[in-house]
Formats: sequence, structure tokens, C-alpha cells
Amino acid sequence: MKNIYMIGVGLIGGSFAIDIKKNNPDVVIYGIDKNEKHLEEALELGVIQEKAILDDLEKADLVIVSIPVDATVKLLPTILDKISDNSLVIDAGSTKNAICKAVEHHPKRRNFLAAHPIAGTENSGPTAAISGLYVGKTNIICEVEKTTFKLQEMALKLFMDIGMRIRYMDPVSHDKHIAYVSHLSHISSFMLGKTVIEKAKNERDIFDMAGSGFASTVRLAKSSPAMWTPIFKQNKENVIETLEEYINNLQQFKELMQQDNFSDIFNEMESTNYITQILNGIK
Amino acid sequence: MKNIYMIGVGLIGGSFAIDIKKNNPDVVIYGIDKNEKHLEEALELGVIQEKAILDDLEKADLVIVSIPVDATVKLLPTILDKISDNSLVIDAGSTKNAICKAVEHHPKRRNFLAAHPIAGTENSGPTAAISGLYVGKTNIICEVEKTTFKLQEMALKLFMDIGMRIRYMDPVSHDKHIAYVSHLSHISSFMLGKTVIEKAKNERDIFDMAGSGFASTVRLAKSSPAMWTPIFKQNKENVIETLEEYINNLQQFKELMQQDNFSDIFNEMESTNYITQILNGIK
Repeated sequence: MKNIYMIGVGLIGGSFAIDIKKNNPDVVIYGIDKNEKHLEEALELGVIQEKAILDDLEKADLVIVSIPVDATVKLLPTILDKISDNSLVIDAGSTKNAICKAVEHHPKRRNFLAAHPIAGTENSGPTAAISGLYVGKTNIICEVEKTTFKLQEMALKLFMDIGMRIRYMDPVSHDKHIAYVSHLSHISSFMLGKTVIEKAKNERDIFDMAGSGFASTVRLAKSSPAMWTPIFKQNKENVIETLEEYINNLQQFKELMQQDNFSDIFNEMESTNYITQILNGIK
Repeated sequence: MKNIYMIGVGLIGGSFAIDIKKNNPDVVIYGIDKNEKHLEEALELGVIQEKAILDDLEKADLVIVSIPVDATVKLLPTILDKISDNSLVIDAGSTKNAICKAVEHHPKRRNFLAAHPIAGTENSGPTAAISGLYVGKTNIICEVEKTTFKLQEMALKLFMDIGMRIRYMDPVSHDKHIAYVSHLSHISSFMLGKTVIEKAKNERDIFDMAGSGFASTVRLAKSSPAMWTPIFKQNKENVIETLEEYINNLQQFKELMQQDNFSDIFNEMESTNYITQILNGIK
């Protein structure tokens, strides 16, 4: 492994680049990004060593694609067209079904590994990239059996070296489950932020009263719309399903309040306290 | 100031006790709590120096009441009955209107200061009490003009010494605004936790996929039902209003998704990114 190409040099791609270079000092990390400013920043910060373009990919030993999921669906076939027969392409998208479908019949399907490193933060861009982002984090790999064995091994070593734990899942289950534990959280945060911002238009001092609890629940509303809009689009059916369940639960809670049924409200909260055990297991 | 009585020795009362003792080594901090286990823990941890009962309050220079808001409404008149003429009583409840109303005609109303230190965490009990909890945090004081001047001064010095910044507000506005920036966040978190726990009953691996974003949005679902049920009850009308606005926003988001109107979804998220500036101002 000598020439590594990062397509997308933001938080996800940049953090991969930093730790891969650290573990493999001899590799050269090339950056490709349609955002020229990000590319310059990544170069200045030492996240990448060289700028490159798609036509250079024939020289790649490894390509990591960390761009919005709609762009991945569009670009992935072209990337596979351009790489050599021994090259490995990994994506890092938050949806997996549309991405796997986009290359299912591609002659170089065996050079591709579909992955979802669950390790974002609410920040974005190369300045948000950090060493150690992936330590102890889960990486969901989909359709591993469709990747050629040698390249599976190469990917696994890479992920192990930066401290990730691996889980295997089919793309349909991935998209269904991730809607609950990631996509819904983002909508919940965005809509909470929206609700309070709307109120604050008339009540200027309202944010002076906000504490760390509020900050925690709306943190994800800082997330990039360019990244998240295509995720919601690609995972539309699952996200709508989670939203419906969430809205029903909120509606039910409101009705309990309207009925002054505070003993049921107590019970609801008490049984949800079970989340404590779950959170203890999340890094 | 020599004898300080903490009614409620949990996170809020205990953290007050620790820093007040640190700033005033000569005071004795007495603890009163209907939970005998908490009282013992507070004593063992050095959060309080002595256990006490309500009848001892005549010796108090200062009483801080940090118990669930329904208990405060019930107990506050009795506390005021028992204290001496020069004693100060401060409450720390998350609602202010019912508490102020409960003592509005009490002959010792001038000995009471209504406060809401916005400084909780999702943890509770004396083991959660920490030094420095209040540094840089906002303390909302209501109806300050109803407290005798000398006792206002005493309270202000106390709050300044532990690093709080003070804001003044009437109880009705307090309850209205705090519903948006605190009470709604808790319901949003609890219902998010509930939605995912319900799903996880059938999908055992779901939490293996949860990352820090999910953890952040459901953190408040660890909160104590004994503390939060009476808050929702006392602030029922305001909380229902915020819930309705929140549900409407979620509903609207869902409809935009159903209509494939992802450009509006992008715009919604982009305008809510404004939360970043707001969060920078929250400690």
C-alpha cells in the first residue's frame, strides 16, 4: 500500500487520512474534493500530502470515498471504472442500500467494500478532522462476501489499526436500524432547535436560560444540510417510519398530560431510564 | 452566617453545600432529606456535616430547598413558619410560578428568595454532587423585590462566590421560557429513548450501531422521574404548548419528506444551523 486517495477530505475522510498516515508513514495521501477551499485547508493542515484528480485513480492502491451519499451513488461507478484491478475502494456513507445497488452489477464490484464508520461529530470540513476519531468506534460493513478476499483482509487490517470494531450487516437492515439510532436523532435535534429559535424571535432572552441539557439535545442541529439531506432522501421510507413512531410517542405523552395522568407519565419516564444501561455501552 | 440547612441533599443541594462550605469554612452544613440513604451518603461523602430535622430550622441562618417542586410547594410555608426573622430561605426549583404563589401571602414572604439555578445534569442524588457545578451558570431569580434587601444581598454574595451569573425574571415568564429551553428537551429525549427502546425489543443489535450523536440526544432520558413528573405537572400549560409546536414541526418535516421536497428540507436544516451561534454562548 503506497498511494491512497481520499475522495472527500472533510471530517470523516480527513480523520481517516491522519491516522492511516500515522500508522503507515511511507504512504502518500492524495486528496480529491470538489471544494477547492477544503482541499487547500487539508493540504495546509497536513491532512493530505498532495492534491489529485479523478483521472489519477489508476495509480491508487486504496480509495476512501467520504462525500455526501448522493454524490457517492453517482460517482462510485466512475471511480471503479478508473481504478486498477488490485485496488480497494471503501465508502463511508450513512446509508448503504442505494450505494450497494449503484454498483451491484459493476465488473469491479469485488474491488469495493461498503462501510459505515459510526463516528461522526456535528462538525464538518477538514478543520474538524482529528486523530483518534475512530478509536473504539463501530464500523458496519455490508455485503462483505462481495469483496474479494485479499481486499477484505487489507480493509480489516486498516480498520483494526485505527482502533475500530467491526460489525457485519446486510444493507437493508443497516438502513432500517440506523434510521432509529442516528437519522431520527438528527431530525429530533433539528426540529427542537427550530422550535426554540422560532420562539426566541419574540423572546430575546430565552437562550440566556438554556443550560447544558438543552445544548446536548440540539447539538446535532449544527450538522451539515449538504450531508444530511441526501441521507434522508436515500433512507426516506425508514426515516418516515421512525418519525411516525416518534411523533406518536410525543402525541401520547401530550395526551397523558392533558388528561392529568401524571402517574403514567412517571412510569413512561421510569421505564425509559433503562437508556442509562444502554448509554454506558456507547463510547 | 453560621448554620446552613440543606433541605434535599441531592445533586443540586449537595453541590451548593460543597462549594458554600469551601468558601465559608466556619459554617456548619446540616442536611434534611426524607431519603435516609441519601442523608447517610451525604454525611459519608462530607457533603453535609450534620443530619437535622425540620424542627431545627429555628437555628438556621440560611435554608436552601432543593427537592422536587411539588414537595417544595407543600413544604415551603412550613419552612417559613419555623425559621427565625433574620433567616433566608432559597429554593432551587425548575418551576417558579406555583412556588411563588404558595407563599405569596405568607407573613415571612420577605425571608424567601425564589431561584432557579440552571445547572443540573442528568444524574441525581448526593453521589452526583460536585464542586464547581455552578461556575459560569445562570441563576434566574424571581420576584426579587419581595425579598428583604439585606437577605437579597446575602443571597447575591453567596451566588457570586460560587461563580453564578444572575438574571431577574417574573415567575410567569420564567415558566413560559424554561418550557422551551429545558422542559421540552427532556420530553424530546425521553420519547426518543422510548422510540428506540421499543424498536430494540425486536432488533437486538440496534444499540451496537448507536454513536455519540444518539448518546447526546437521549442523555436527558436518564433524568429522575421523581423530579421531572412534578415539573411537568406544575408547568402543564406551557409544556403542552411547546410540545404542540414541536410535534407540528416534526409533522411538517415528515410531510416534506413524503412530498420529496428535499430542497425545503435542506433549507430548514440550514436555517436551524443558526443554533451553532447560540450554543457557543452556552456553557
